Amino acid sequence: MEKWFEEKGNFSDVVISSRVRLARNLREYPFSTRMSAEGAASLVNEVMGQLSGLTDSDGVFYFCNLSKLSKAERIAMMERHVLSPQIVNKKQETGLIVSKNESLSIMVNEEDHLRIQGMAGGMHIEKAFQLANEIDDIASSKMEFAFDEKYGYLTTCPTNVGTGLRASYMVFLPALSAAGKLKLLSEELNKYGITLRGMYGEGSEGTVNIYQISNQKTLGNKEQEIIDNLNNIVLQVIRQERKRREYVLMNNYDIIEDQIYRSYGVLKYARQINTKDAMTLLSQIKFGFDTGILKSQNKEDNIFRLMMEIQPYNLLQREGKMLGNIQRDKIRAEYIRTMLPIL
Amino acid sequence: MEKWFEEKGNFSDVVISSRVRLARNLREYPFSTRMSAEGAASLVNEVMGQLSGLTDSDGVFYFCNLSKLSKAERIAMMERHVLSPQIVNKKQETGLIVSKNESLSIMVNEEDHLRIQGMAGGMHIEKAFQLANEIDDIASSKMEFAFDEKYGYLTTCPTNVGTGLRASYMVFLPALSAAGKLKLLSEELNKYGITLRGMYGEGSEGTVNIYQISNQKTLGNKEQEIIDNLNNIVLQVIRQERKRREYVLMNNYDIIEDQIYRSYGVLKYARQINTKDAMTLLSQIKFGFDTGILKSQNKEDNIFRLMMEIQPYNLLQREGKMLGNIQRDKIRAEYIRTMLPIL
Repeated sequence: MEKWFEEKGNFSDVVISSRVRLARNLREYPFSTRMSAEGAASLVNEVMGQLSGLTDSDGVFYFCNLSKLSKAERIAMMERHVLSPQIVNKKQETGLIVSKNESLSIMVNEEDHLRIQGMAGGMHIEKAFQLANEIDDIASSKMEFAFDEKYGYLTTCPTNVGTGLRASYMVFLPALSAAGKLKLLSEELNKYGITLRGMYGEGSEGTVNIYQISNQKTLGNKEQEIIDNLNNIVLQVIRQERKRREYVLMNNYDIIEDQIYRSYGVLKYARQINTKDAMTLLSQIKFGFDTGILKSQNKEDNIFRLMMEIQPYNLLQREGKMLGNIQRDKIRAEYIRTMLPIL
Repeated sequence: MEKWFEEKGNFSDVVISSRVRLARNLREYPFSTRMSAEGAASLVNEVMGQLSGLTDSDGVFYFCNLSKLSKAERIAMMERHVLSPQIVNKKQETGLIVSKNESLSIMVNEEDHLRIQGMAGGMHIEKAFQLANEIDDIASSKMEFAFDEKYGYLTTCPTNVGTGLRASYMVFLPALSAAGKLKLLSEELNKYGITLRGMYGEGSEGTVNIYQISNQKTLGNKEQEIIDNLNNIVLQVIRQERKRREYVLMNNYDIIEDQIYRSYGVLKYARQINTKDAMTLLSQIKFGFDTGILKSQNKEDNIFRLMMEIQPYNLLQREGKMLGNIQRDKIRAEYIRTMLPIL
């Protein structure tokens, strides 16, 4: 089954994917921070039962209690952005409902009772919103959500009160990043209630140049306003990133071209490679494909997909067995050699 | 025309080439250190005249006054070890007689009046000696050399007095070099009157791992004794290098294999590369081919040949025009991409 991140979309030179998540809580249960172990088990049981049989055009969703999955399986899903770090590490009973291509998922008993998440490749936040919204409609027809006429949806963390909606884009900003412009950009975005974080949240910025841009607050805003505001900001970020790319390519084309090709060469021939080095080099060649410096013979140049697939636990899952670090680095190198677009 | 370094020979995993040079001086001319400009011109004229028409199976030798060549052409020949740095920079009239494949050459008015040089790929010092010897016989039948019954051939520098013979091997010592064993080895060789120097003489050791091993003194030794002594020493060096290679490959095969393949990948895809980086990477992949880690589909894996061809002035000569540094680095990268053995 293809995953959501295997499709590319609008503005795909900068925007990798779009995501909307809705935070919902059942009126009859206390917030997760004040919930007993028994309460948690009962909550998960109720939500899974109420939503059982959920389908989309690909068929029935996958339902599971996360305690039934191995830690490796849970981390693999976190690497693919289906699960959050919080739920992966949570001791209480938790649940997951997810569509086959993983574009739609519901985490049960994360920070809120339900976290409904819609994802789409490229700049398609409306599609992601629609996916989440449909599930929200179904869920609210079966369960009573904690809702206040004045404040809107009630959530564990006050920042989510209101629409409970967080919209976010995953963006690729190698040029702005190399120019050291991201700190300033982040401060600028904050003024508009927008946050810039690393690919896997705070502290994951590194050399991969992939960032998440999302709204900070949900109170006092209509859903469409939140999305429109974020879209306006992201379009400006796209413009800035493209402008900076043009500038660096005009001034340093030869050096950048050489760097990108060397990165390609290393990935094409390395016999073992760790995640960090692979991500750094893949970021380089993603830049190459996105700017047209590299051209693929086989029209398949979704480097982000490869970035997901070579994450440690996704690699283990594909292999179907536990591996030591060196063995994993060898398999990663081999996988990249095989999957790298042919020039 | 193929050059001498395009053939590979015995022990080619360690020994790149063999060289013998004979220092000879004409009795009727003062040593070069005490020669006037007119004397130098006259000497060059006389030697070139006496040896004119010299041939081997490939045809007539190439004769030229070096002042007629551009500096670039002279340096290109130095890069190929046909000319010495001394003669390239000499102000006085100097000459060169060289066979088409450059395995045989005579520098006229270098440090001595004649420096006859025979070269062969691999461990074939006898072949190199024979080549030089035949020319020596021809030359001595036409000119009277400065010779003393007691001391032998008289030369400008006392270390060359006697046979006037210097035999040397160009050797590839990546494993001993990486192990930091070369200082000790060099001291050890000195005890036997043998010198270890970089590929292009003192100070050219770098990361290329190519060294020259040659006899220091020629006085009081018969020619065959010098050669036998050197051969014995070099066979021991070969043994040590091979032993060390086995050791490092047994202990670090995965890491070394990965390094070599990455170097190959960089060379296969780089868009511009300077001489130093190219030599370092080529040294890595020469090690790969020599140890069988890399295998060429097209059976052509003479990396040393490529090392010669990508030297700055050889590259210019091939291109047939002067180039700026960046342009040259681009052409070097392109040439390497084309010529690199296919795996």
